[in-house]
Amino acid sequence: MRILVLGGDGYLGWPTALHLSARNHDVGVVDNLVRRSYDTELGTSTLVPIADLDRRASRWQAVSGHTLSVFDADLTDFDAVAAAVAGFSPDAIVHFGEQRSAPYSMIDRQHAVYTQVNNVVGTLNVLYAIAETNPDIHLVKLGTMGEYGTPNIDIEEGFLEVTHNGRTDTMPFPKQPGSFYHLSKVHDSHNLAFACKTWGLGVTDLNQGIVYGQETTETALDPDLATRFDYDAVFGTVLNRFVVQAVVGEPMTIYGKGGQTRGVLNIRDTLACVELALLHPAGRGQFRVFNQFTESFSINQMAVLVTEALDVACEPVHLDDPRVEAQEHYYNAKHTKLTDLGLVPTLLDVDIVRGLAAIVQEHKDRVDPSTMIPTVDWRAASSAGNGSVPYLPSEIGVAR
Amino acid sequence: MRILVLGGDGYLGWPTALHLSARNHDVGVVDNLVRRSYDTELGTSTLVPIADLDRRASRWQAVSGHTLSVFDADLTDFDAVAAAVAGFSPDAIVHFGEQRSAPYSMIDRQHAVYTQVNNVVGTLNVLYAIAETNPDIHLVKLGTMGEYGTPNIDIEEGFLEVTHNGRTDTMPFPKQPGSFYHLSKVHDSHNLAFACKTWGLGVTDLNQGIVYGQETTETALDPDLATRFDYDAVFGTVLNRFVVQAVVGEPMTIYGKGGQTRGVLNIRDTLACVELALLHPAGRGQFRVFNQFTESFSINQMAVLVTEALDVACEPVHLDDPRVEAQEHYYNAKHTKLTDLGLVPTLLDVDIVRGLAAIVQEHKDRVDPSTMIPTVDWRAASSAGNGSVPYLPSEIGVAR
Repeated sequence: MRILVLGGDGYLGWPTALHLSARNHDVGVVDNLVRRSYDTELGTSTLVPIADLDRRASRWQAVSGHTLSVFDADLTDFDAVAAAVAGFSPDAIVHFGEQRSAPYSMIDRQHAVYTQVNNVVGTLNVLYAIAETNPDIHLVKLGTMGEYGTPNIDIEEGFLEVTHNGRTDTMPFPKQPGSFYHLSKVHDSHNLAFACKTWGLGVTDLNQGIVYGQETTETALDPDLATRFDYDAVFGTVLNRFVVQAVVGEPMTIYGKGGQTRGVLNIRDTLACVELALLHPAGRGQFRVFNQFTESFSINQMAVLVTEALDVACEPVHLDDPRVEAQEHYYNAKHTKLTDLGLVPTLLDVDIVRGLAAIVQEHKDRVDPSTMIPTVDWRAASSAGNGSVPYLPSEIGVAR
Repeated sequence: MRILVLGGDGYLGWPTALHLSARNHDVGVVDNLVRRSYDTELGTSTLVPIADLDRRASRWQAVSGHTLSVFDADLTDFDAVAAAVAGFSPDAIVHFGEQRSAPYSMIDRQHAVYTQVNNVVGTLNVLYAIAETNPDIHLVKLGTMGEYGTPNIDIEEGFLEVTHNGRTDTMPFPKQPGSFYHLSKVHDSHNLAFACKTWGLGVTDLNQGIVYGQETTETALDPDLATRFDYDAVFGTVLNRFVVQAVVGEPMTIYGKGGQTRGVLNIRDTLACVELALLHPAGRGQFRVFNQFTESFSINQMAVLVTEALDVACEPVHLDDPRVEAQEHYYNAKHTKLTDLGLVPTLLDVDIVRGLAAIVQEHKDRVDPSTMIPTVDWRAASSAGNGSVPYLPSEIGVAR
């Protein structure tokens, strides 16, 4: 299969590209390297050093014998997207290419606008490129479990059968996202459903939980193949951060009461899920949604697990929650569709936490504890920083 | 009350501004006049001539003794929005300021991107300006009944009580919009709900039906106070177009079978509804949704009504539906909240159709029948016309 991976230089895009390439698919990588610019902007860095994209690709060629095609393209630049799609002629596109941090989207107005414009316009461009170039291309799009919020009913996979006043219909599951980033994914989901209905495209929307872990079979083959490990308060995910805090002897920082419950999954399962979606594609006109996580944990439960696994000395501290979210809530989200396709989950246990800790230990000298302090406050609506988000190209057609 | 009307030069924004001004509110009008540019782009024109905004405002001063403050501002330009909000210091903001045509949003990729960026970023800017300047400002935002689509269950006003697997929650009503324009309003609705929850803003979202009519009590006072009358295939609404076709002796053009049923309302009821929302504001932190229409008609029923009212000679013709939409469907949308606040509807009848026809008769020589032919095809995903949508300012922070 010919597969184009959008955002293929990122935390998950890169190992996904390798995973698919190792399985003898022809893989192209599209990225504008903007994730690396966010680090420069924020003064943060991946804990595990990563090679630049060209070096990654050539090292993969040397290690595996497989070639990755690399396209330097910003998804908000339609001509670049269209050229990549026409040039590579994929059977499927895996779309990781979005700004993916909730706190980043909540920094100020410019970051909110940037996140929504970048993500929504990027996805619109991908949809137009597919519709124009080859509507048979199967789009596998990364959404997030955060689109659903925390309703007081079971969360289904994308759709909900509703009976109301004696009539029944299957409808999109109502969305109650908790940041401008999560909102951008909800906007995408609505645009995707419309494109499937109107243009007959086939799309799989993977509503992914919180991913932890860093090493995959392919990235472990060479240090130049490593993927990012983010532990800072803006781009780091919670389990990665807890392990870093435990290893460097800082208290784990829990936002609020810690009863917030979320679906999580191992990075290796992300790769497996994407592959399963590709091997069992959506049909033309089909918009299907899979909930892509393997188990649920509360923040407190994760802290307990890390404490047990790593013999942590200090107690976790509870910070004021910078987010506006329910501190304790019902949470029962379904996730059977990927299991039905054959997913065998890698579940979180003390051994996995210890494996993560070994990675952190190796790069312990690179930890900057100051970057783990949350500084983005959901409640502060700030328009500060006009002109400070330089990432979107002028091509959008927005120059007067 | 001090009220800022965004999009106050438009079809509904202008008569709303006059209506509120006539009731002794202090009214400011914000507009970038882009609606007039769309006419230039499309080669279309309002049937009833309209004065330029400065002339409108000075004539209103002369006729009524009331002053309108006029702000030339593009809502995607945050500094301009913030300056208008800070300078006028409103108690409430009525937000009509969006690209409002479904066909326009479906012309090609650039128009889709323009519509979503313009509408979503404009509304984000308004939300940030309110949150920063004065979170007590009540925002009355125009949404559309088209956000709901045509589900097989009753459409409620914004929210739906769902019982699922033995648990119950009140959730946002699931949205299934039918164009990139309608999608932009769905995106707005999600952003609005989030801002209410996160920043404690008070917002009323008016999901409006299809508006017909042109004359209001205030616009009828002087030809320079007239509002637009759009009958073309891109910006014209269906009843206005039918009346024009009847008056000039062209067959009414029905898209598809004509069983498409929609909520409609008289332009005078739009004004009354907005005023009721303003007089009974949403509380801090409240996101409420009113369905703003007074009765439902199928397209065929509207054609029959016009035929009866105007003694139309020729039969309607059914064109291939350029839209992707259900041709026959269940439709039962609730609309009691505005009635509960005191709305007394002006219902559509033969007299109202005849009144509309009299307006058309007066400007019959301005009709260009070629503009009533639908040319925008929902099924054609075209990226043509790069660079042809020059309306967004570069301020968005999107210039590299």
